Amino acid sequence: MLLEFNTPSSLILSQFQQIVGAEHVIVDPDKRHDYGHDETEDYNFLPDVVLKPSTAQQISDIMKLCNQHQIAVTPRGGGTGLSGGALPVKNGVVISTERFNRILEIDELNLQATVEPGVVTYTFQEAVRAKGLFYPPDPSSRGSCFLGGNLAENAGGPKAVKYGVTRDYVLNLEVVLPTGEIIWTGANVLKNSTGYNLTQLMCGSEGTLGIITKIVFKLRAYPQKEVLLLVPFVTNEEACRAIAAIFVAGVSPSGLEYFEREAAIKTKKYLEETMNTSVGTDFPENMDAYLLIELDGNNEEQLMQDAEKVMAVVEQFQVGEVLFAETATQKDELWKVRRNISPAVNAYSLTKSEDVVVPRGNLPKLIVGIKEIGVKYGFNSVCYGHAGDGNLHINIMKEALADAYWHKEVNEGIAEIFTLVVRLGGTLSGEHGIGIAKRPYMPIAMAEANLQLMRGIKRAFDPNGILNPEKIF
Amino acid sequence: MLLEFNTPSSLILSQFQQIVGAEHVIVDPDKRHDYGHDETEDYNFLPDVVLKPSTAQQISDIMKLCNQHQIAVTPRGGGTGLSGGALPVKNGVVISTERFNRILEIDELNLQATVEPGVVTYTFQEAVRAKGLFYPPDPSSRGSCFLGGNLAENAGGPKAVKYGVTRDYVLNLEVVLPTGEIIWTGANVLKNSTGYNLTQLMCGSEGTLGIITKIVFKLRAYPQKEVLLLVPFVTNEEACRAIAAIFVAGVSPSGLEYFEREAAIKTKKYLEETMNTSVGTDFPENMDAYLLIELDGNNEEQLMQDAEKVMAVVEQFQVGEVLFAETATQKDELWKVRRNISPAVNAYSLTKSEDVVVPRGNLPKLIVGIKEIGVKYGFNSVCYGHAGDGNLHINIMKEALADAYWHKEVNEGIAEIFTLVVRLGGTLSGEHGIGIAKRPYMPIAMAEANLQLMRGIKRAFDPNGILNPEKIF
Repeated sequence: MLLEFNTPSSLILSQFQQIVGAEHVIVDPDKRHDYGHDETEDYNFLPDVVLKPSTAQQISDIMKLCNQHQIAVTPRGGGTGLSGGALPVKNGVVISTERFNRILEIDELNLQATVEPGVVTYTFQEAVRAKGLFYPPDPSSRGSCFLGGNLAENAGGPKAVKYGVTRDYVLNLEVVLPTGEIIWTGANVLKNSTGYNLTQLMCGSEGTLGIITKIVFKLRAYPQKEVLLLVPFVTNEEACRAIAAIFVAGVSPSGLEYFEREAAIKTKKYLEETMNTSVGTDFPENMDAYLLIELDGNNEEQLMQDAEKVMAVVEQFQVGEVLFAETATQKDELWKVRRNISPAVNAYSLTKSEDVVVPRGNLPKLIVGIKEIGVKYGFNSVCYGHAGDGNLHINIMKEALADAYWHKEVNEGIAEIFTLVVRLGGTLSGEHGIGIAKRPYMPIAMAEANLQLMRGIKRAFDPNGILNPEKIF
Repeated sequence: MLLEFNTPSSLILSQFQQIVGAEHVIVDPDKRHDYGHDETEDYNFLPDVVLKPSTAQQISDIMKLCNQHQIAVTPRGGGTGLSGGALPVKNGVVISTERFNRILEIDELNLQATVEPGVVTYTFQEAVRAKGLFYPPDPSSRGSCFLGGNLAENAGGPKAVKYGVTRDYVLNLEVVLPTGEIIWTGANVLKNSTGYNLTQLMCGSEGTLGIITKIVFKLRAYPQKEVLLLVPFVTNEEACRAIAAIFVAGVSPSGLEYFEREAAIKTKKYLEETMNTSVGTDFPENMDAYLLIELDGNNEEQLMQDAEKVMAVVEQFQVGEVLFAETATQKDELWKVRRNISPAVNAYSLTKSEDVVVPRGNLPKLIVGIKEIGVKYGFNSVCYGHAGDGNLHINIMKEALADAYWHKEVNEGIAEIFTLVVRLGGTLSGEHGIGIAKRPYMPIAMAEANLQLMRGIKRAFDPNGILNPEKIF
C-alpha cells in the first residue's frame, strides 16, 4: 500500500510555530539538509520542515495536526543510524529529539533511571557510573548516538554478549502515538505479565509505532575488575571456531569481538593519519583475524580462572602471541581500535554496511561463505563485530566499482549473503535495524504471513500510516 | 465487543477425528471436565470437545476449521495456571498440547535447545543439566507445568532475579496463527533487530495470538557452586527494606525469596500432615518474615565475599539467627518449604492468589498497605514471593467469609491493593498473567489507549476473535 502524503502548508507551519516556538521550526534548506542523512551509505532525503519540540505534549499536538492533514512524520535521534531508519523518505516533518536531553532521575534504591530520549548514550553511561552503576548497552557511536535511537533500533554493542541489548534494560516507556495519545507502555518493574508487552514491541520498531518521550531503564552494579586479551589467529575460520568453543568451556565473556586483519590495519592507519593518535598495538602480516576477549567481575581469582579457560581453548587453534592488556592505557588502546573500525573503513571507501547474525557456532561457515560471494561478485569486504553473539558486521567496499554495478550486482551479492545467513539459522540485522537499507531483503528472512502481521500491528498504532513511512516492510 | 461462538456440530467433530485420529478427540463429559479448570480459585468451564493433536499441521487444520465456523479455541498446557488463562470460558474446543512432549534437540555448540510446548519444565531442566547446561526459569509448578504455558504466561520463578524470566530465554517460536498459517516468529539468534519482535509479543500473550508448536531456547552454563541463607526478621517491613539494600550493596543474588511467618508455619504443617515429610527447619514465633537468599557462581571466594556483603546488610536490621544451609539436604529442605507455600496455603482455604510487582524499594510500603487493606475488609492474607524482583504473591484467604462477601467486597479490597500497587509504580502481574481472574482489574493498571492497542494487535492476529476469547482485556 503506497500512501500519499501532504506537504505542510504555511498555515500548518505557523501552527507548528505556535506549538514549539518559532525558533524551533527549521525551514532553512541548509539546516534542513543536516536532518536528511545519517551514517547509512550516501542516502539523503530533504525534510520539508524540522521541528524541535521539548515536551510530550508538544509532540502530541504535532502528531494530531499531521495525522489530520496526512503529513509524514519521521522521528530522529543522534543521526548515527546505519540502516536509514531516521531518514524522511517521504519528506514532510522531521521531529528531532535533541532537546529531550535530560536525565530526569537516577534511582539508586531501585537501580533504575528515568531519562529523555535525546540523552547521548555515553553521557548516560558516565552519569550512572559516577554512582557505581552500570548501563551496559554500548554502541560504537556512544559518543553521539541518542538513547531513543538505541531503543528504536534495539542497539547492542560489545557488552551485549554478557549483559544483553537495549531491550533487556527497558522497563517502561512514555510514548506519543501517531494519533496523538500519550501513553506509558508498561510499569517500572523487573517482571511484567500484564497484557501484551507494548514496551518490548516499541523496542526495535524503528520509530514506526510511536515517538518515545521518556524511558525507564534498569541498571546494574558496575563490575569492579576486568581483563582484556587480544588473540591473533592464523585463519579467519579458526578465529570463528574458537568463539563457540569459549562458551562451551563455560566462560561467559563480557566482550567477545572479532575483526579481520584488514579492519585492524585500516583502523590503525586511520587513527594515525586522520585522528593524529598513535596505537601501540601491532597487527602482524601473517595473521588473518583477531579476537578481543574481555572478562569482568568482582573477584580477581575468578577472572584468572576464566582467563585460563580461555587460553586453554584458544591454544587448540593456530594462534600468534596473545596480548594480555594489563594497564588501563593498553585496554583503552585496544578498545579504541575496535570502536574506530567503522569510521576507519568508511574513511577509505563508500560502503554498504551489513549487520547479520547467526547462531555463533555457524560463524565459521558464514565467514567462508561471505568471502566466496565477494570473490564471485568482485567486491572486497571488511568483517568484524560482536561475534560472541553471532553478530557480524560486513562492510562491503565500493572502492573502484562502477556506480551501476554498486547499485545492482553488488545488491545481488548482498542478497546471496542474506540467503546464506538465513540458511545458517540467522537473520538480517542483529542491532542496526532494517530501516530502508535492508528493507528490500526482508522477504529473504521473513514469510509473507509475518510481514502481514507486522503491517496489522502498524495499522493498530498508526491507522493513517503517517509515522516514519516506508521503513522495515 | 462480545462475540458469539458456535458449538462444533457432529460433522465438525468427525472432521476433527479425521485430523487428529478418533482416540484424540475427547467428548466424554467426565474426561472433558478435567480440561475445564486449572489452579485458579474454583473456576470451571466445560469445553465441548478436547483435541489432542501432535503436529503443527494438525493444529493448523483445526484452526482453519474453527475459524471458518466461528468456534472458540482455547489452548492448554499443564493446567497449572493461576489466572485462568487456559480455561474455555466460551466452551468450544480445548487444544491440549500434552502430546507435544518431545525435546527435539539440545545444541551444545550453540547452547540452544529446540523443544515442543508440552514438555514439562522440570523434565527440560534436568535434560539440559545432564549436559552441564542451565535453563533458569523455574516456576514452583515445574514438576507438572508445560514450557508452552510458561511462555504464554511469561513465567518466572526464584532464579529470575539474576537470570531473567521465560521471555529472556526464548529465541524463536513456531506458531500456528488463528487463521491456520504456520510461521516462525524470528530466528535462532541472540540478537535480533529485524522487524517487530513477534517472538517477544507472543511471550506473555496468554495463548490469545497463536498456538506455540516449537520453541527455541537459549541456555547457559550451569553455575557450579551456590550458598543459601535463611534470614529471619522481627518485622515484615524490615525484611522488605533489606531486599533493596542487598542490591544496593552490589550483590546480585540468584534467589531472593520472601515469606511471611504464616506461610512458613502453614507449609511446615502441610508437609508434615499431608505430604508425610518432615522439615528440620524451625520457624520461631517472634519472627514476622523470612528472606531466603541464594548466591551462585563458579568461585568459592567470590561467593563468600558476596555472603559477607549480604550479612553486613541484614545485620543492620532486627534479625534472628541466620541459618547458613551447608549440605545439599539442608538446601533442598529450605527450597521444599518455599516451593510448597502455594499448595500449602491453598490446602487450608480457598484463596484468591494475586501476583503483584513493584519496584523493589517500594515493597515495605506495599506489605504494610496490604495488611491495612486486609484489616479494613476483614480478610487474612499470606504473602510471599520473588521479592528480589519486587514480585509479591498475595494469597487472600476465604476461610469463614460468606460467599457473597468473597465475590463482592473482597474483590473491592483486591482492587484497592492493585490501586496501591500502581501508585507504587507497579502492576497487576509479574508472572502469572491476567487471564480471566485479573481481567476486571486491568483498567486500574492500563489506560484505555493501551487496551485499544492490544485489541488492535489481537485483531491483526485473530480477525474473528476465536482464539482464547475473553482473556486479558
